Amino acid sequence: MTIYLDYAASHPMTPAALDAYARAAALPGNPASVHAAGQVARELLEEGRARLAAVLHADPRTLIANSGGTEGNNHVLLGAAQAWEQQHGRPGHLITTLTEHSAVLAPARHLAQRGWNVTFLHPDRGGAYTPAQLRETIQPDTALVSIHHANNEIGTVQPTPELAAIAAEKGVAYHVDAVQAPGILPVDLSAWGVTFATFSAHKWGGPRGVGFLYVKRGTELPPVTLGGGQESGLRPGTQNTAGIYAAGVALTEAEGMRDATFGHLTHLRRHFMDAVQDIPDLRFNQPEGASPKIVNLTLPGADGEALLMNLDMQGVSASAGSACSAGTMQPSHVLTALGLSEADARASLRFSFGLGTTLAEVDTAAQALRQAARWSRSG
Amino acid sequence: MTIYLDYAASHPMTPAALDAYARAAALPGNPASVHAAGQVARELLEEGRARLAAVLHADPRTLIANSGGTEGNNHVLLGAAQAWEQQHGRPGHLITTLTEHSAVLAPARHLAQRGWNVTFLHPDRGGAYTPAQLRETIQPDTALVSIHHANNEIGTVQPTPELAAIAAEKGVAYHVDAVQAPGILPVDLSAWGVTFATFSAHKWGGPRGVGFLYVKRGTELPPVTLGGGQESGLRPGTQNTAGIYAAGVALTEAEGMRDATFGHLTHLRRHFMDAVQDIPDLRFNQPEGASPKIVNLTLPGADGEALLMNLDMQGVSASAGSACSAGTMQPSHVLTALGLSEADARASLRFSFGLGTTLAEVDTAAQALRQAARWSRSG
Ligand SMILES: Cc1ncc(COP(=O)(O)O)c(C=O)c1O
Ligand SMILES: Cc1ncc(COP(=O)(O)O)c(C=O)c1O
Repeated sequence: MTIYLDYAASHPMTPAALDAYARAAALPGNPASVHAAGQVARELLEEGRARLAAVLHADPRTLIANSGGTEGNNHVLLGAAQAWEQQHGRPGHLITTLTEHSAVLAPARHLAQRGWNVTFLHPDRGGAYTPAQLRETIQPDTALVSIHHANNEIGTVQPTPELAAIAAEKGVAYHVDAVQAPGILPVDLSAWGVTFATFSAHKWGGPRGVGFLYVKRGTELPPVTLGGGQESGLRPGTQNTAGIYAAGVALTEAEGMRDATFGHLTHLRRHFMDAVQDIPDLRFNQPEGASPKIVNLTLPGADGEALLMNLDMQGVSASAGSACSAGTMQPSHVLTALGLSEADARASLRFSFGLGTTLAEVDTAAQALRQAARWSRSG
Repeated sequence: MTIYLDYAASHPMTPAALDAYARAAALPGNPASVHAAGQVARELLEEGRARLAAVLHADPRTLIANSGGTEGNNHVLLGAAQAWEQQHGRPGHLITTLTEHSAVLAPARHLAQRGWNVTFLHPDRGGAYTPAQLRETIQPDTALVSIHHANNEIGTVQPTPELAAIAAEKGVAYHVDAVQAPGILPVDLSAWGVTFATFSAHKWGGPRGVGFLYVKRGTELPPVTLGGGQESGLRPGTQNTAGIYAAGVALTEAEGMRDATFGHLTHLRRHFMDAVQDIPDLRFNQPEGASPKIVNLTLPGADGEALLMNLDMQGVSASAGSACSAGTMQPSHVLTALGLSEADARASLRFSFGLGTTLAEVDTAAQALRQAARWSRSG
């Protein structure tokens, strides 16, 4: 029996979401069709969208269904850049951070190659960015600010409303990669005042390959994939009725349990930290106030990959950071941005919890980590 | 009870595909993770990919999982154009056709705006293109040929192996939008000799929002979405384990019944055509040898949208062409390319059948069409 402590990488679909998915996927209609079968599909699609909108405090028409967080981040960065270039006839300035997910970093680097001036903000030692820091970085030709809400490796929660307010004050569009937030942290798109926000359903028990992009009403954003007129002309392709419906059902469910989840995860994390903190030299990397889903720790001198394999043999599935870079043997760019040495970054592990995680599992995992640390140091 | 005759727009997920989906989606692992949970997910993902590859006669490593046909078509056209521009420092020449799906036409038009020389081949009256026609259109700076295999509105089947051979002879990459083929027509990617091929699982009973792109080994194609290194570095984002696994299960199932399906659809179509052919002035638009899934007909003088609504009230879900343009009141670009007048194109309907369609349903639909035609002419 595997103890899965990698919920930040992916959450299994919940039974309610699977049930909703199965009901919708057995129906034939394409929501873009005008006939009765299309109408039924459209109603399910729009029910899903309305559920997502209700939880996130948004107008349903502002949610553009797509294939997940990577697509959403690319759409905003590449789309906003294209719109700016069309208007100004030259590349502009993009502000993002050193601790974004690769789905923001990679398009940002691509824009830099295309002549964009890209500022990667440096975090404080806890991974946070401040409104003052953002204010002094914005320039007259800043086209977009892109800063995540909750970090996927260390759980840092950014002051999104305050950051977005600075951008708004300067008339600059603000994008938040909110993929790690729903179901655990409150998300209020209208109060946040952001221009764009990215979501991915498999992080809260909805299906993989399903996500959506929030685009504030009145915002110009071109589609970056071209084809039919679906999703307000912003995202062509046959709409994934069952996927969006199930994403909505899962988010309603997750939101209803959000306080309980937060409490449970906080309790699990406290318990886990207590159980491992006397491992010699062990340090925790997640800051005060981080998302309770994540513990990130360093065992100086150890080889993270070897620790992970040892844990795996003991039946514990943890990770070295983002799953997207798993197996690449690169030290985490998030941890090095915090000031960790490459060696320390390579000696770091992420454990992430879900509502399904039990105290007993956390206990077993803590014992497994103690064991792995002893083995690593004896080697 | 609705009679669904719009299988070319979307096929419901089959019970076997739903079952496979549910089994895989309940598991937590991200296939990019190295631990045991990731391994289980990876095995399911790769089993799905192997099933798809076996049916389509391809090496599994050549199939890049994505979100569907629209993404695949965009990836090839925009990606190949980008690669060509990078190599040659200027826009090149693209050959495609007047009767492509909007997910090819829209990126082609975008490239034309970007300075590309785009040739839209004109079809014969049955919607077909000939090797001779392609041969005389290829120029020294032709970067890509993009021609569908089976047309989604009139079912025309192109001579893909012969067309691809002309391109290969001239050293030009060949892309086939094969979205409408699997499960009905034979697909043999190695015999076809194409460079790229696009597929979408919801056309054969797999999930929506799931597709893949075939990229012949040794072909240069950059990713157009940027992020993690998933799918051989060509398509980032958390891989949709359950989606690809279910797509593979559904395709194995569809392939096993392909001959029976072909026979059944041929029989249904014959029956339907016989039952409606004495409607005054009625003409069929699909050519000899077209995919048996589709009947496309014109009732000169009628208003297609009104006919559809009348059919809908009688419980029959048919369409005016592609679902992507449904509701836009535009006459079908496929039919006008065949030489139909705008008025005739607007007076046209598509009925498309699936393995689940019964002879009784086809009978009822034929009677409903006769009724709708009478009503339309008395109005
Ligand atoms: C912060 C963050 N952004 C974006 C993504 C990408 O989302 P997806 O895997 O749905 O493409 C992830 C997770 O993979 C993430 O954690
Ligand atoms: C020929 C053809 N190409 C591409 C597509 C687009 O596929 P998808 O809806 O999966 O994006 C479709 C159907 O919608 C199609 O019929």
